[in-house]
Amino acid sequence: MAMSDGPSPPAGFVRKVPAGDDRPRLVCDDCGFIAYENPKVVVGSVCLWQERVLLCRRAINPRRGFWTLPAGYLELHETTAEGARREAREEALAEIELEGVLAVYSIPRLSQVQVMYRARLVSPSIAAGPESEAVALFGWDEIPWNELAFPSVRWALNDFRASRDAAEFAARGNSPGELGNY
Amino acid sequence: MAMSDGPSPPAGFVRKVPAGDDRPRLVCDDCGFIAYENPKVVVGSVCLWQERVLLCRRAINPRRGFWTLPAGYLELHETTAEGARREAREEALAEIELEGVLAVYSIPRLSQVQVMYRARLVSPSIAAGPESEAVALFGWDEIPWNELAFPSVRWALNDFRASRDAAEFAARGNSPGELGNY
Repeated sequence: MAMSDGPSPPAGFVRKVPAGDDRPRLVCDDCGFIAYENPKVVVGSVCLWQERVLLCRRAINPRRGFWTLPAGYLELHETTAEGARREAREEALAEIELEGVLAVYSIPRLSQVQVMYRARLVSPSIAAGPESEAVALFGWDEIPWNELAFPSVRWALNDFRASRDAAEFAARGNSPGELGNY
Repeated sequence: MAMSDGPSPPAGFVRKVPAGDDRPRLVCDDCGFIAYENPKVVVGSVCLWQERVLLCRRAINPRRGFWTLPAGYLELHETTAEGARREAREEALAEIELEGVLAVYSIPRLSQVQVMYRARLVSPSIAAGPESEAVALFGWDEIPWNELAFPSVRWALNDFRASRDAAEFAARGNSPGELGNY
């Protein structure tokens, strides 16, 4: 599978199967150091204020100008819950309270795992952070479905809608056949 | 915070804050290549056969000789569900069916996110894979609580027990104050 081989190795590294392993890794040709490449974790949330959902219009590529949920890469030494709250703060200057795991999505093409939470805004005070052109609260019938940045934004909004009347809500995964390819 | 600075950078790399960023990254002193360090994803499952739970006694360090759940690092271009099934196959030669997300745990000290599933064994056929000394099916009152490999094994077993009578089960996170430190 061509994608598993990844991009060209950085200078000084080669891609080979280390002894005792079963797949190619990035190995320093000089000292043998193995630079394991790992999937990345995205954390985010669907945040509600009354019956309106917080969306952010992206100020950066990819998909600049399209609407997304407050979400981004988890940092080292951060819990997924801390990361989701940080992203809401960074992208929408929003304080949120998490209510549980909405979904764990995988985007294997990007080697990405998304942990999405159900959340409530602590107040309606929101504003665009540096990575957002605009932020807004949308009622369900106002969501700009054709201007969403990524398939997983649509998944999360639909799963969130399904969760609204559930006392206990089982975290969702990818829908069958949905792997986030455009 | 000392831990955020991580271990010594590999030869040729320095740790510094790139322009436009807000935290130190591993930067190649020569060409400026930024080697982002990311949290790692562990995927695994609590697998039931009738009322017995599958555990594996570790053949490798850390915690060799202690009991754990079939779990391990997610590979590139793999979904979390695929990874959980692969780990059951590798560590216990077990075929499983996933029933939903049991929990998303964070171990910030290790920069680790664990996605654990509820699962059922397709048959009682199990055997030790290369990373296991032994595998076994334990009734609830037989679980070797004092010989579990990691705190998160205990969390997952307890959360799984709580899920058994739930028609719809909300994925759990870390219990308050529980961060996986020994």
